[in-house]
Amino acid sequence: MLVLHNQTFIDRDEAVVDIEDRGYQFGDGVYEVIRYYDGQWFLLDDHLDRLQYSLNEAEIDFDVQVNNVKARLNDLIEHNHIQDGGVYLQITRGVAPRNHPYPDKQAPTLIAYPLNLKRPLDDQQNGIHTITAKDFRWLRCDIKSLNLLGNVMTKQKALNAGASEAIFYRDEIHVTEGSSTNVFIVRDGTLVTHPADHYILNGITRRYLLNLADKLNIPYQIEVFSLNTLKQADEVFVTSTSAEIKPVVSIDDKKIGDGTPGTITNTLLEHYFDDINITKLPEDV
Amino acid sequence: MLVLHNQTFIDRDEAVVDIEDRGYQFGDGVYEVIRYYDGQWFLLDDHLDRLQYSLNEAEIDFDVQVNNVKARLNDLIEHNHIQDGGVYLQITRGVAPRNHPYPDKQAPTLIAYPLNLKRPLDDQQNGIHTITAKDFRWLRCDIKSLNLLGNVMTKQKALNAGASEAIFYRDEIHVTEGSSTNVFIVRDGTLVTHPADHYILNGITRRYLLNLADKLNIPYQIEVFSLNTLKQADEVFVTSTSAEIKPVVSIDDKKIGDGTPGTITNTLLEHYFDDINITKLPEDV
Repeated sequence: MLVLHNQTFIDRDEAVVDIEDRGYQFGDGVYEVIRYYDGQWFLLDDHLDRLQYSLNEAEIDFDVQVNNVKARLNDLIEHNHIQDGGVYLQITRGVAPRNHPYPDKQAPTLIAYPLNLKRPLDDQQNGIHTITAKDFRWLRCDIKSLNLLGNVMTKQKALNAGASEAIFYRDEIHVTEGSSTNVFIVRDGTLVTHPADHYILNGITRRYLLNLADKLNIPYQIEVFSLNTLKQADEVFVTSTSAEIKPVVSIDDKKIGDGTPGTITNTLLEHYFDDINITKLPEDV
Repeated sequence: MLVLHNQTFIDRDEAVVDIEDRGYQFGDGVYEVIRYYDGQWFLLDDHLDRLQYSLNEAEIDFDVQVNNVKARLNDLIEHNHIQDGGVYLQITRGVAPRNHPYPDKQAPTLIAYPLNLKRPLDDQQNGIHTITAKDFRWLRCDIKSLNLLGNVMTKQKALNAGASEAIFYRDEIHVTEGSSTNVFIVRDGTLVTHPADHYILNGITRRYLLNLADKLNIPYQIEVFSLNTLKQADEVFVTSTSAEIKPVVSIDDKKIGDGTPGTITNTLLEHYFDDINITKLPEDV
């Protein structure tokens, strides 16, 4: 496997970073996971737009266009002969003697390499079990940063409980998102999901789905909902680039609907794979 | 310079980590900065105790005693001929294919190397200028983790404003700590500082000072205070391993006291350096 390290392709075995890379000492960087289906990028332009957003918000001096990231990702795909799968890409503030303030001159480190992503067909057919967990993460979850310790601790908590995802809540009346997904509910035929503010990541798959709902004339509301509303929903599903759309069939051992994937969830799932040739969403939701 | 990498000493130039070290991708690790004065460790045992606390809370499978960290740090000091300065040490959950859950078998990565720390005598003589900033960090600040993006963004904000530290507040009535320090105020001759709960790091220098206050019969209260109380305080100072004790002479351009380091702050500072041969605090505060 070849890894992209700034402008250079190197062997996976040689893909290392300095111990004073700020990504390693402060989690001082941002990332994207991008899907590649059947020889084509899925929503690449949207991922690159969000990457630039995260870089700007974290004040990392890196311009995605100027640095030809898109062309380099295409080279990465070609060099590694990828037909299906994905790419992990992260950009940190670079190497500097350890000190909290930004270095005077930032020299960001870019790393990108192929991920062997498979479609999660079993989970999509059977649905997944989830738990709820207190959201104790920082208040800038809109930045797709490397500060993920809260997410990984909570994901592990879900696995320890025999579930595969945890759904975060700030308090009883404020459900936010999953530990690595966005959360949607269906209530009386209407989709509901959290607003794209600082409490959640504005997922690319989340935005894809809102566009799809428009296309299919499925009504949706973008609003905060409670734990009780979540558990009483007709359908629940989570979304992410690697999860795509996964029906949730239980939350804290409470069955959702009849305990099988819901009708609207399945309709959305069926359309998802028809769209894998899209590289840019028609509108920003 | 020699760097400790797990059990091995390597040249600084060769001190690199794999791109899939979880410290690099998730900030999935914890750290300590430990002072070494005049040929002796300062409060080493307390740092190692806190390191084990952070490891336990982050569920990283690493035992500080079993892994002889203390002996290895002594070797690090000896190999690098350190007389004054400090050591930076971090332990991550190790290298594994990128995935949120913990690897089945954790193989933590330990990195430690000397820091060229100088006593901040100018700041201690003149005091520092500070700003206040909304505390948007996660709610487990008691874990000394590598998830420091909120801290570094806020430290930079202070520098951009011509200050050298930012003091965090959750809301108007809840001041927590500095972006890389703990905060103390003096009110009517009494020290006040935030309780050691999940909102702050239980600083080793913070604990040293509470012990020192006991010794000097300076009364103290461990309680949450407001932004207003902070700005109206007779004296304010911040503490950390590298800052030691730094008087705060202004907050958001408001002068504290008469705008020079306060009497009690200076008394504490004078005693600080008398104690550099302490390796363990007498009691846990």
